[in-house]
Amino acid sequence: MLSFDCDYTAGAHMQILAKLAETNFEPLPGYGDDKYCESAKGKIRTACALPGADVHFLVGGTQTNSIVIAALLHACEGVVSAQTGHVNVHEGGAIEATGHKVLSLPARAGKIDAGTLSAYLSGFYADESNIHMVQPGMVYISHPTEYGTLYSKAELEAIYAVCKQYALPLFIDGARLGYGLESRESDMTLPELARLCDVFYIGGTKVGALCGEAVVFPHGNTPKFFTTFVKQHGALLAKGRLLGIQFDVLFTDNLYFEISRHAIACAEKMKQIFRQKGYEFFMETPTNQQFVILENEKMHALSQKVRFCFWEKADESRTVVRFATSWSTTDADLAELEKIL
Amino acid sequence: MLSFDCDYTAGAHMQILAKLAETNFEPLPGYGDDKYCESAKGKIRTACALPGADVHFLVGGTQTNSIVIAALLHACEGVVSAQTGHVNVHEGGAIEATGHKVLSLPARAGKIDAGTLSAYLSGFYADESNIHMVQPGMVYISHPTEYGTLYSKAELEAIYAVCKQYALPLFIDGARLGYGLESRESDMTLPELARLCDVFYIGGTKVGALCGEAVVFPHGNTPKFFTTFVKQHGALLAKGRLLGIQFDVLFTDNLYFEISRHAIACAEKMKQIFRQKGYEFFMETPTNQQFVILENEKMHALSQKVRFCFWEKADESRTVVRFATSWSTTDADLAELEKIL
Amino acid sequence: MLSFDCDYTAGAHMQILAKLAETNFEPLPGYGDDKYCESAKGKIRTACALPGADVHFLVGGTQTNSIVIAALLHACEGVVSAQTGHVNVHEGGAIEATGHKVLSLPARAGKIDAGTLSAYLSGFYADESNIHMVQPGMVYISHPTEYGTLYSKAELEAIYAVCKQYALPLFIDGARLGYGLESRESDMTLPELARLCDVFYIGGTKVGALCGEAVVFPHGNTPKFFTTFVKQHGALLAKGRLLGIQFDVLFTDNLYFEISRHAIACAEKMKQIFRQKGYEFFMETPTNQQFVILENEKMHALSQKVRFCFWEKADESRTVVRFATSWSTTDADLAELEKIL
Amino acid sequence: MLSFDCDYTAGAHMQILAKLAETNFEPLPGYGDDKYCESAKGKIRTACALPGADVHFLVGGTQTNSIVIAALLHACEGVVSAQTGHVNVHEGGAIEATGHKVLSLPARAGKIDAGTLSAYLSGFYADESNIHMVQPGMVYISHPTEYGTLYSKAELEAIYAVCKQYALPLFIDGARLGYGLESRESDMTLPELARLCDVFYIGGTKVGALCGEAVVFPHGNTPKFFTTFVKQHGALLAKGRLLGIQFDVLFTDNLYFEISRHAIACAEKMKQIFRQKGYEFFMETPTNQQFVILENEKMHALSQKVRFCFWEKADESRTVVRFATSWSTTDADLAELEKIL
Repeated sequence: MLSFDCDYTAGAHMQILAKLAETNFEPLPGYGDDKYCESAKGKIRTACALPGADVHFLVGGTQTNSIVIAALLHACEGVVSAQTGHVNVHEGGAIEATGHKVLSLPARAGKIDAGTLSAYLSGFYADESNIHMVQPGMVYISHPTEYGTLYSKAELEAIYAVCKQYALPLFIDGARLGYGLESRESDMTLPELARLCDVFYIGGTKVGALCGEAVVFPHGNTPKFFTTFVKQHGALLAKGRLLGIQFDVLFTDNLYFEISRHAIACAEKMKQIFRQKGYEFFMETPTNQQFVILENEKMHALSQKVRFCFWEKADESRTVVRFATSWSTTDADLAELEKIL
Repeated sequence: MLSFDCDYTAGAHMQILAKLAETNFEPLPGYGDDKYCESAKGKIRTACALPGADVHFLVGGTQTNSIVIAALLHACEGVVSAQTGHVNVHEGGAIEATGHKVLSLPARAGKIDAGTLSAYLSGFYADESNIHMVQPGMVYISHPTEYGTLYSKAELEAIYAVCKQYALPLFIDGARLGYGLESRESDMTLPELARLCDVFYIGGTKVGALCGEAVVFPHGNTPKFFTTFVKQHGALLAKGRLLGIQFDVLFTDNLYFEISRHAIACAEKMKQIFRQKGYEFFMETPTNQQFVILENEKMHALSQKVRFCFWEKADESRTVVRFATSWSTTDADLAELEKIL
Repeated sequence: MLSFDCDYTAGAHMQILAKLAETNFEPLPGYGDDKYCESAKGKIRTACALPGADVHFLVGGTQTNSIVIAALLHACEGVVSAQTGHVNVHEGGAIEATGHKVLSLPARAGKIDAGTLSAYLSGFYADESNIHMVQPGMVYISHPTEYGTLYSKAELEAIYAVCKQYALPLFIDGARLGYGLESRESDMTLPELARLCDVFYIGGTKVGALCGEAVVFPHGNTPKFFTTFVKQHGALLAKGRLLGIQFDVLFTDNLYFEISRHAIACAEKMKQIFRQKGYEFFMETPTNQQFVILENEKMHALSQKVRFCFWEKADESRTVVRFATSWSTTDADLAELEKIL
Repeated sequence: MLSFDCDYTAGAHMQILAKLAETNFEPLPGYGDDKYCESAKGKIRTACALPGADVHFLVGGTQTNSIVIAALLHACEGVVSAQTGHVNVHEGGAIEATGHKVLSLPARAGKIDAGTLSAYLSGFYADESNIHMVQPGMVYISHPTEYGTLYSKAELEAIYAVCKQYALPLFIDGARLGYGLESRESDMTLPELARLCDVFYIGGTKVGALCGEAVVFPHGNTPKFFTTFVKQHGALLAKGRLLGIQFDVLFTDNLYFEISRHAIACAEKMKQIFRQKGYEFFMETPTNQQFVILENEKMHALSQKVRFCFWEKADESRTVVRFATSWSTTDADLAELEKIL
């Protein structure tokens, strides 16, 4: 069946599989100390234009979020996030399981803004009883957000300025970073984004890899004992090569960006198809996730022919659903979708 | 350079890579709900002769140990383990990070015995002040152990009988299970072992897979909310297919057992080479890890030509080192090793 | 200086101090196994008309909240609370430090209502992706709330009915329980309240004791290993007598209720004084906490003569402040307050 | 019945009760911000001859140990302790509940020695795989130990020198500190001890108080957010006065030392009584706890007339029991004990 339900329905880019096969019998040291990890880190540093950056490879998104957040926070600190942020909603309490509160702020289209953040922080520090409260310890945003929306460079600069004012590290969850950077509405390059935060990750799982996320500490600011911390959280892969090789391929000859661009082009075509067919959009989103409002009856009929993702009820008779493209979407997929719609 | 340092220096069995490539563009649901996971689970149930067993796929060993242990224990309970057990020594405090004490027992060659366990437990319950102490909540053993040794069926039965007497679940860490079951000294089949515990895992990472461990709850006794718990601990792979496909291949046509047998055969040959060359063994071990005592000078010379693993100092002038074979060891490797020695 | 800032500014009721002195040299067993704890538990059971109830004495409110909540929840569960609930705001992340999320619901005057709770729960269980989310595991309310408001019997019954429908335990934080039960607007007795929840506590610290909270499991439903859990959380007092003696005195001859009634009478008088002097109230509250809106200038002038508690900004020029009476408030205090206002 | 079972069977020194009564109706701010806490802190600083020390009051011993340890350790660090240390045995897993391993060292008579500590640490840092292990993060000793034994000044200096060499903070659990300092075999004053560690606490619960332990950071080295951390762990007493007043009394006119000296004098008399009656001692201890070996029959007979504490089995027919004196032991108690023996 045709599948537009999410961006992790296919395996990996074929060049990754080829490289895994090609290198398969080279004996390599474990735990990420191999030459492919080293090479991939170098290429990521170059792509970020950050020769002094630290790069670490982890396996998945929830794991990365909880490890980075727990590694940065003091026991009395929480992470500030949009109420709709992945860490606040869809990670099974992974953040709280490390002992930290998610301090949620109201969001619009998945985004917080500098004003709201600043008001919360100035209010917090003005409150005499804040010694009895969870201290804000860092700020988390996702880019693209869970709603496929993007921060503009000006918005991100404003947020980062507030973070700096209060000495709070800013963490950008880039599970779908490629799809953000290659959006036609993006006004930021990877090096620019990398300079507007204290840690971020480049998502592999949703952008061409079997698994894997590359955490970047732009200023060589890896927290103390980080490798042991990763191990303690069950995230230190014995065969670190699996991650190193994948990112090495993804960051060779701009593959990561090219396949992201492809997904965006597909999303734009898909958007046009929906528009031409008269479908109503739930919100404008410039990345690979598109949210469409369907009559419930129509939704049930469609679901026999194409997989998409339930998002939320619009009202009693209509539902918001998500259609996602990815690096693996083909022209044939889109043609078939058009036919079905 | 020749590599005998551990059993995770190569990638994956080529049949696994082939299957990953073959299935790469099939759109599959995420989080382990795909047909390959289903198929692999069925084959593992068959291999265990346990039609009612629950099977779950996790990514790595430390992750599996900490998740299974934390999922089974009450907050006031600890896990009983050999002092030399992996969970007590080499997992960066992963068990304690979930809030639980490792209650360590003296071990011999990596093994605890039923008598020691029984004495500890009867002493604990006889102590009136035990309400102020960590309650024993489960027993952990590794098979093969960290020293490559094996429990005999009688030893395991005796341990399990004590566990049952005190209503403590028994958990077997099978990170190298294949190498244990296929040892010439093993007197247990997989179905027999599966009946002598309450949960165990079949190691993939060290036995032919890129990553992955298959947790088996023999009696369908998966703890409540287990999937959410796995997610919360960052271990729920979005592309669950990566694990399902690997185990599906490993449990097709007995591949898992065959490649394990191969590693054992290589280990036996290697043992003979060492013996013929007059090397001294640190201990007798019937599996894929061999521990040899080297003069320090000899050790430094050898280390220029072959990778092995530092284990511990024997005395001022001699060192215990480990040589490990695996599914990927070749006759050529052994021939070269012989030449070097 | 005159003090109306909170209900824990004085020591303890003199009968408590007298009893502590009187029993001081009796050698008693530790950890709550003494006869005064036993006696106090019996009297509390009688006051609750619950002969089968379990009673445990803990030291303070935050401690009690975090221990009871953590003892009742599975690792994947969170506690549902009003957004303004003490556990969500003013306990320094004590709940999250035990690994659990506070699942906050919108509140009105410190209260949640059955409809909101029901809508949240039915929405949660209807969401197919809830396996990736924190599971609701219990419901927490405070009575009186942090705003001094009360649940009516009908409101509590409705909430408890929803809890039962979803098999979620209901926990009532009674840090100020006496002031709630003795409010003129209360339509519940202690035995009635005790039957409308699964666990609650009777606050001592704010109602006449030096410290101490009495946790009641109405149906003998103390969780497994509870004493060890209390010990593990640093809350098992060596000299348990300190808590037992205090509650024994408080529950002799209705002292707890009498001193609560006194605080309420004082609050009513205080309310009248404010009203007569033309002060504006922030909200109507029937218990010992009164919230008044002051011009900032007036506030600064008043603060030279009487202690009260900053609550929140009303607007740029006005502030909400709290005046609290307690068991120790005297007529002289009120007369002086009247003079000052 | 005559009671020698432990040193917390009585209430508090009468001067404490008198002061609690005397100050009872003074309105005081909460959470330790009152003048009695301030005064007590000043007196403790003076007693320690450390004008720059930070002093914090907590409620009980397990609570103090777990809070201090968790506040000082990084998530990847554990606390080094004697195998027999209270934190390793009798605190219900309180340390592990905060996520940290207790790294236990072999002990003699409750004590570790500098040589063992040094050997462990040098071994740890020499082990290349230590990145996969719990990092030693601090050292914990109790003084007196759980066996009533004492470190000599030279022994403590040697341990502290090792700690400094490895930059590990040293924490002294002084639950019975008074009884240690006033022992005839003590060769250290409080100021001397305070200079030989990075944090210690002065036990109140076992030395004349109803409850309360005074944590001292000798160099003003309180960890960041400590008050919020205390709150988060349920240990911030609303009526902090209860602790402040008690320590203010204990550190006025040397009361703490005098009552400790009294307990020691009683212990010496008791020792003589046992000796004269021909009882065998389990070990020589210079403080208020004495360990005697009893024939089991004799033990049962004695237990009808005097309370003592089971310690451990000596062999099949004999048992080690503990008799403890305290600040509240009287000459009459000793005379009666002599009669009974």
